[in-house]
Amino acid sequence: MSKFVVAVDVGATNLRASIFTLDGGQLKTLTVRTPTEGHRDTIAELIYELVIKLVDDLGLSLKELQGIGVGSIGPLNIRAGEVVNTPNLPIKNFRLRKPLIELFNTSRVYVVNDCVAAVWGERNFGLGIGVSNLVYLTISTGVGAGVIVDGNLLLGKDGNAHEVGHLVVRYDGIRCGCGGIGHWEAYVSGNAIPKYVRYYVSTVGYRRRSRVSELLDHGDVSPEEFFKLVRDGDELAVEICNTLCVINAAGLASVINAYDPELISVGGSVALNNYDLIIEPSTKYLGNYVINRVPRIAPTAFGKDSVLVGAASLVINPPKELLRIYGESA
Amino acid sequence: MSKFVVAVDVGATNLRASIFTLDGGQLKTLTVRTPTEGHRDTIAELIYELVIKLVDDLGLSLKELQGIGVGSIGPLNIRAGEVVNTPNLPIKNFRLRKPLIELFNTSRVYVVNDCVAAVWGERNFGLGIGVSNLVYLTISTGVGAGVIVDGNLLLGKDGNAHEVGHLVVRYDGIRCGCGGIGHWEAYVSGNAIPKYVRYYVSTVGYRRRSRVSELLDHGDVSPEEFFKLVRDGDELAVEICNTLCVINAAGLASVINAYDPELISVGGSVALNNYDLIIEPSTKYLGNYVINRVPRIAPTAFGKDSVLVGAASLVINPPKELLRIYGESA
Repeated sequence: MSKFVVAVDVGATNLRASIFTLDGGQLKTLTVRTPTEGHRDTIAELIYELVIKLVDDLGLSLKELQGIGVGSIGPLNIRAGEVVNTPNLPIKNFRLRKPLIELFNTSRVYVVNDCVAAVWGERNFGLGIGVSNLVYLTISTGVGAGVIVDGNLLLGKDGNAHEVGHLVVRYDGIRCGCGGIGHWEAYVSGNAIPKYVRYYVSTVGYRRRSRVSELLDHGDVSPEEFFKLVRDGDELAVEICNTLCVINAAGLASVINAYDPELISVGGSVALNNYDLIIEPSTKYLGNYVINRVPRIAPTAFGKDSVLVGAASLVINPPKELLRIYGESA
Repeated sequence: MSKFVVAVDVGATNLRASIFTLDGGQLKTLTVRTPTEGHRDTIAELIYELVIKLVDDLGLSLKELQGIGVGSIGPLNIRAGEVVNTPNLPIKNFRLRKPLIELFNTSRVYVVNDCVAAVWGERNFGLGIGVSNLVYLTISTGVGAGVIVDGNLLLGKDGNAHEVGHLVVRYDGIRCGCGGIGHWEAYVSGNAIPKYVRYYVSTVGYRRRSRVSELLDHGDVSPEEFFKLVRDGDELAVEICNTLCVINAAGLASVINAYDPELISVGGSVALNNYDLIIEPSTKYLGNYVINRVPRIAPTAFGKDSVLVGAASLVINPPKELLRIYGESA
């Protein structure tokens, strides 16, 4: 029997569980919808079920399990390994670390924010091998990051030293899903784009003839519809997309000025599906905003599996910052 | 004879050198104008002269020197211990670490950015004792910070993982002294306030009768004049000051969201002289911008000596990150 690790990605929409080898090879993955009802251990119990199925399918034995890594939506109480009052899931509070320790009868359970897991995976197995200063940036439903400075994984007092989606890019700007004003995420995330398109058209863009205005008459413009219009050359959509690129340049520059990274690896469905539209063109505006030396900016090596690879890497090479926190809490 | 350390604060205006005891006691300080002409070692040679004078005055012997800590204006090449292309001093490039090592015949010379020194001093001797996540923020000629996350001093690929004055607070805002657009520093620093006051009056405030407009007819309004008008209750000055507080809240929130600190200690002449006008009132706007838990925000324990205390603390308890860099470069 061969040794293996379990990696879990707890997302707002999907819950994914994978079996990895100790050298980071991804053997098999199961994806289900994240439960929207249940109690505080429903998600942990579902993870256990998925893993039992994976282990059976692969002919493995739980005796060879080397540990469980979890990258989860936040915010986290990192000491307890719990998700606390998350805005993106009806089960607002749920436990991960404690029930997983009990169900699998192992203390080697590591739970961090999804982007924190992803940056650790990038550092161990991806573009960040040998790189001491790097940021993993995701643009999907929201905007988030995991950060490593001087080789140290940043956690912060509550494990949230990476909330870059909530960096302010316009102090008198539009409102974010979190309630804040002018956050980067309020403009460019998958959740924000439909609202920003409507806002833009109702303020500066209302004079233009465009498919955007027609679509707005029937409801919100989804990110997919919006980026299709940009690719079709719709003038107003192209203009709005250009503004999103300027805002992404401002956000990227704040990340560069705050953490001084050598590498920013970019993931998340909105960024990966539209890299040529909202990331690549934004780099030409970086010079308007950066003071630190511009790092390499590139798509993550792992596409939509970056959180899973990261979760596996938590077990294979646990970050000393996390071990310290668990040691303190023990 | 008793053991001692040398601490140096290389500022754009003043150069200060102090003798400290090993427990952080400040024995004597000399302040001179920072040289505006000379060669790449002029400043290091002047530091040597000042220290010789201090050592003589105090009846000490250089044999008991335990090391030299320097907090300097940036940007730095932290590996070489040099200031590189600084915008704030006519001698744009000068060496610190190498000539000081030679002049004092000791390898224990530690050179970092002034705010990085200050945060290390706060952690070792000030408000940050026992605090693992803290930021030292300065608002003076410019805006800067030193940052400690999870007990680790942040340096970054070039030693600039703390350029918070250049966080973007308005992506379509006014131009910063560095050439960037909408940086926090472009609004609230000592250098920026006169320009921002003129900009504000020429855009939204031109209708108001105010002493501000009268002063503008004869030239720029200095920060001192501006804050006096605020204290006198000049309506336009109060309105502008309120906007500066909103912008400070946005900047502080980005710092909180990026680093998740338990403590922000605030220094710099503009902030310390006007704490009740531009820091305290800004905290009431923080709720509009923060997602992470709001930390304690308080004036530095060391007033205008915070960089000197920090420079001394570099010698007394050298940061492992800096030792690693020096080890790698040796």
